[in-house]
Amino acid sequence: MTDRIEFWFEFASAYSYIAVEEIEAKAAKAGVAVVWRPFLLGPIFARQGWTGSPFNIYPAKGAYMWRDMERLCAQKGLAWRKPSQFPRNGLLAARVATVLAESDAIGSFVKGVYRANFVEDRDISDPKVIGDVLRGVGLAPEETLIRATGDDIKARLRERTDEALARGVFGAPSFFVRGELFWGGDRLDQAVALANS
Amino acid sequence: MTDRIEFWFEFASAYSYIAVEEIEAKAAKAGVAVVWRPFLLGPIFARQGWTGSPFNIYPAKGAYMWRDMERLCAQKGLAWRKPSQFPRNGLLAARVATVLAESDAIGSFVKGVYRANFVEDRDISDPKVIGDVLRGVGLAPEETLIRATGDDIKARLRERTDEALARGVFGAPSFFVRGELFWGGDRLDQAVALANS
Repeated sequence: MTDRIEFWFEFASAYSYIAVEEIEAKAAKAGVAVVWRPFLLGPIFARQGWTGSPFNIYPAKGAYMWRDMERLCAQKGLAWRKPSQFPRNGLLAARVATVLAESDAIGSFVKGVYRANFVEDRDISDPKVIGDVLRGVGLAPEETLIRATGDDIKARLRERTDEALARGVFGAPSFFVRGELFWGGDRLDQAVALANS
Repeated sequence: MTDRIEFWFEFASAYSYIAVEEIEAKAAKAGVAVVWRPFLLGPIFARQGWTGSPFNIYPAKGAYMWRDMERLCAQKGLAWRKPSQFPRNGLLAARVATVLAESDAIGSFVKGVYRANFVEDRDISDPKVIGDVLRGVGLAPEETLIRATGDDIKARLRERTDEALARGVFGAPSFFVRGELFWGGDRLDQAVALANS
């Protein structure tokens, strides 16, 4: 059995951008397979009584997050631009990622969406933007977007979000390895090490 | 001018325990001086609308924190026992730490209190427990406890907490280096590196 790390991400999440940029190389180096798990934080935050991002609800936490992101990206050599709108609605992107979850294109698509949001400051809720990302990774936008809005995909994404909640996920990025939950990009190395142990 | 790192900690905070165990060695290795800044999270959480620890208010976050602490302490070789009461009231300990902040005993005292809470499962709001810690680091409990309840010390601790709030602190442990705020033990290395740069 291949060692694996489940990667649970939400397209609106700034910290998930860093994890997305790092996980494939780190997992490959350790001989660990990445299982991509797009989900929605909205319903999970709603259960905690939050009607939006905690980074907007708690301004001190938000101000810190933006500075922290800037420093982390500089340190890691990642491109970064603070988006002019936050959080952006990642529902359509999450549905497309649900379509693509088992395909070879998933990593490139996910990275493309995060870069559109957090490097190019584009609105990832716009089907045209998602279409551009799909074209960029060699996929036909029309066909994929139609599949992404099918009832089966909508239901699968809802199930994934319910599963995240049931398994104790409360933020993104999150990782599961051998039943252990790890929260935040700061735990990626620890999670990969466990998968590889 | 000596490079320095301001270390803002709250005795009730579990994650601060790890930072307390690590900061002196990491700072010494980098030639950086530690400035000890005990403060109270209660008034800061109250401003965010929380009447207690977010780890109790948000159970999924709390369950994760306890497992995360267990894993981190195992990984770092630190003793750890989940306290039977959380959070414990750190007011008296913070007042004593305010008395001792500039003394050579501050590091040993602070470590002693965190170990009492997070290794020995003792009630750090109990003056006897704080007295034991003081004796353990060679200080006279009676005299120090009397100083700790003086109006000047109470006022200084309130001022520190106000200062933390004004400077954007929203949790513990927090670090300041050259005006930059770093939150969480995961940022200790980054903060020390900046102080040493």
